[in-house]
Amino acid sequence: MTFATAFDLAPVPDALDGAIRQAIDAKTKPPGSLGEVEALAAQIARIQGTLTPRLRRCRLTLFAGDHGIAHEGVSAYPQAVTRQMVANFLAGGAAANALARANVVELRVVDAGVAGKSMDTPGLISRRIAPGTCNFAIEPAMSAGQCDAALRAGEELGADAEDGVDAAAFGEMGIANTSSATLVAHKLTGAPLDVLTGRGTGLDDAGLAHKGRVLVRAAARTSDRLDPHDALREYGGFEVAMMAGAMIGAARARAVVIVDGFIASVAALAAVRLAPALRDYLVFAHRSAEPGHAVVLDALGARAILDLGMRLGEGTGALLAWPILRCAAAMLSEMASFESAGVSGRNR
Amino acid sequence: MTFATAFDLAPVPDALDGAIRQAIDAKTKPPGSLGEVEALAAQIARIQGTLTPRLRRCRLTLFAGDHGIAHEGVSAYPQAVTRQMVANFLAGGAAANALARANVVELRVVDAGVAGKSMDTPGLISRRIAPGTCNFAIEPAMSAGQCDAALRAGEELGADAEDGVDAAAFGEMGIANTSSATLVAHKLTGAPLDVLTGRGTGLDDAGLAHKGRVLVRAAARTSDRLDPHDALREYGGFEVAMMAGAMIGAARARAVVIVDGFIASVAALAAVRLAPALRDYLVFAHRSAEPGHAVVLDALGARAILDLGMRLGEGTGALLAWPILRCAAAMLSEMASFESAGVSGRNR
Repeated sequence: MTFATAFDLAPVPDALDGAIRQAIDAKTKPPGSLGEVEALAAQIARIQGTLTPRLRRCRLTLFAGDHGIAHEGVSAYPQAVTRQMVANFLAGGAAANALARANVVELRVVDAGVAGKSMDTPGLISRRIAPGTCNFAIEPAMSAGQCDAALRAGEELGADAEDGVDAAAFGEMGIANTSSATLVAHKLTGAPLDVLTGRGTGLDDAGLAHKGRVLVRAAARTSDRLDPHDALREYGGFEVAMMAGAMIGAARARAVVIVDGFIASVAALAAVRLAPALRDYLVFAHRSAEPGHAVVLDALGARAILDLGMRLGEGTGALLAWPILRCAAAMLSEMASFESAGVSGRNR
Repeated sequence: MTFATAFDLAPVPDALDGAIRQAIDAKTKPPGSLGEVEALAAQIARIQGTLTPRLRRCRLTLFAGDHGIAHEGVSAYPQAVTRQMVANFLAGGAAANALARANVVELRVVDAGVAGKSMDTPGLISRRIAPGTCNFAIEPAMSAGQCDAALRAGEELGADAEDGVDAAAFGEMGIANTSSATLVAHKLTGAPLDVLTGRGTGLDDAGLAHKGRVLVRAAARTSDRLDPHDALREYGGFEVAMMAGAMIGAARARAVVIVDGFIASVAALAAVRLAPALRDYLVFAHRSAEPGHAVVLDALGARAILDLGMRLGEGTGALLAWPILRCAAAMLSEMASFESAGVSGRNR
């Protein structure tokens, strides 16, 4: 399978970089005084290929999937919660719903492979690969065909931006998916498992120790380092692989891709390994309290916008970061220049 | 003058604290998983005295004032920029305008004491104390009467929330006002001047060294520590004192008070010393790149929401933090509970 080469993605052109920097520095403010907001404005301008970038519509796609590893008792919550939370998303009662409404973000929910029977809930987008992955402590989480199908389904959903969505946020729900993400990160970065492994939804000390032992055992099944396709196949979740594909698809549609927390960043890391040009389209919403997130952000050379001690997932970090991105674009598009506003420049 | 006792402000009642914590923990998310957002939600709920807090309208009041110390060459920009930027705010071309529009925040501009003649610009709110402060390197910045007038004018403007403004943000514009804020912070906290002094709008190394020498000279005029009234009178700006008064006024109207960067935090510190109950109403939008800000935040026991390397002022940090506060309130008001959504609780 010539997998890695199949994700074509054009790099963001750098022809405008000088003009963008000049335009930002001509705005009526001391150069650099908007800090990271200026860097975000420059990135959005590059992606859109204009000196007057605009962010109008943001859509959060939430991928839900279950994990066979949940049967090893690695989560503080029972597997049924994945399915129950999908219903909660569709009823509008989850954190993601409240934050999406407050920040005027559209939300869609995708069943990437929730355990149990197919859910016939109105409004749910079904892209079920299987009713949960296999238990990766004893066997690969999915087949190569399933991994490919998840990536391709995500790619198609991500590219579905013909309706003017210029910012694409991605989130996830899946009991035990910090275990999945921890192993994918371990195999992609080589960082030690004990540095990467965290409490997920809130394990106590005994639970964390147990999770650590399960992940060591699961990691021993395969080589120290894996390529992105094998890492996803061996340890990924359907929602993780689908999100990776969706990021590539959204970038191909020239959306700004808003990466949420630890799980989403692991998906982003796998996706960047599959399509390196993706990196230029990614903005990183927040730094999670989950310890592995810092390692994954480092591997991506990324600095997160927010650092609020969050560890919920569901795209909640991306939802909080969205207005900051919109402001960054507005700053560059709308501010007057020293010249146009008749404001004096520096003394020296 | 019985000044300090004249700022009556009732503390936020703590009767609901237990119920608020319980309500947040019952939401369909692992306890604590929204990190700082949960703490903000709890604070907003306390201020509003309800388990279903709402933030609907935010208004940014921008205070502009000039500083006699500018004549010592402590800023990278000429004093005329204060006046030019007031015109820019009113024409809609400044960073604060672009961000306020993007985040649907109302903006009003107050002339607290800009140098030169009175500005007859439509839309400008005139509360001019004088055409700039005196040069505090050689004499007090203002008289006790001027300081009192600035505080009272601010108090009145801040309390002007009868029209449903439930979040009050404050920002400033004033060439050389990091010098003013640095000295007020120095006299209120006792922190060393060399720790507090920064580049402001962007001084080079020589400019920073010169500013440092001017501030050491100015500090030597008075006792090591000053009470808030004397600190404002000796070294404050009209916009700084007016902002301090406005925070107290807004809190009295039970608004959530959004504090911007270094200058605004110094005003907040002075205001908290005048009316200690104010502290419970304050949220701190961002941590500025200006080095003194960390010291002032520590003195207030505050953690900033954002840390984006910004150092512009104008309330730009407050504008970026506003949607996060709105989300925090929405989280608590709108999310389903485990019970209402039928979601399973923890395994153990």
